[in-house]
Amino acid sequence: MLKKVPYNEAIARKYPEQVGWATCVDDAGNPNAIALGWVMCTSISPPMLAISVGLTRYSHELIDKAGEFVVAFPSEEMKDATMVVGTKSGRDGDKMAEAGVHLIPATVVKAPLVDDACANFECKVTGKLRTGDHTIFAGEVVASHVGPQGARRIYSIGGDPERLFSAVQPTD
Amino acid sequence: MLKKVPYNEAIARKYPEQVGWATCVDDAGNPNAIALGWVMCTSISPPMLAISVGLTRYSHELIDKAGEFVVAFPSEEMKDATMVVGTKSGRDGDKMAEAGVHLIPATVVKAPLVDDACANFECKVTGKLRTGDHTIFAGEVVASHVGPQGARRIYSIGGDPERLFSAVQPTD
Repeated sequence: MLKKVPYNEAIARKYPEQVGWATCVDDAGNPNAIALGWVMCTSISPPMLAISVGLTRYSHELIDKAGEFVVAFPSEEMKDATMVVGTKSGRDGDKMAEAGVHLIPATVVKAPLVDDACANFECKVTGKLRTGDHTIFAGEVVASHVGPQGARRIYSIGGDPERLFSAVQPTD
Repeated sequence: MLKKVPYNEAIARKYPEQVGWATCVDDAGNPNAIALGWVMCTSISPPMLAISVGLTRYSHELIDKAGEFVVAFPSEEMKDATMVVGTKSGRDGDKMAEAGVHLIPATVVKAPLVDDACANFECKVTGKLRTGDHTIFAGEVVASHVGPQGARRIYSIGGDPERLFSAVQPTD
């Protein structure tokens, strides 16, 4: 029994939606990061991840220029940091310091790893596609890192302002 | 405390992962569908969704040719059907009949809507990007439909074979 509705009403049915981070650096090596729900795997061999980044975002400029990014899956300990990273712009000051996140050097790319995350994926951009008000950056994973076993990811369950939840529990 | 590991070990930290369906049609109008975890929003204005489809999949051929697809969010009632749609190929027979899914005509595209889903999005392909062994199809949403209020989505929690769960419950 389907009902035709405006897009915004229908897309609200997508939650819970995973939350990821993408980190990047500027020319001088200063780190930045964004929180994003719009991230997916996009190849098995070679392993690749795709992220969708708003055209006006500071990270869009940095990733486009550097051709590199790191995808991190924030852990439940990173809930407050994720709220900071997801709501402030790196153009307006050092939001990474405000978020209190421990960043560490990656092994292949210049974008940093997030020390407290469930997992980190170093990516080199191999292609991009303009999609409306965003760009999809597709990156080949050139190195992967995991945090502690059992660390749980963060999911958004929507609402206004969008709420972040520590974890989701599968039910059967 | 990060540890560098092979990609497959790190990407196992992604679960729970949402499960979507993409439906499509062949030249004669026969429907097909795939189950996919690799789907994301990719634009606010215009609304767009992106799906990542394996190059060898029958649906890849159909979507590429028709330039249209429907993204559906399967509901927990569609767990068994999702297993059929996700593990069989439409090249080998009428898997839609085997899945016992009720398909209904869409309003703009030829690909069908899934009657029991939480939501359906009719999409017209506006761009595509080859990413390793997959193609990202980006589609503008031209019509949206919702199922019953409160219907819950299906998520995969990984494992071998990959397990599907009815729903996930946010915990905080």
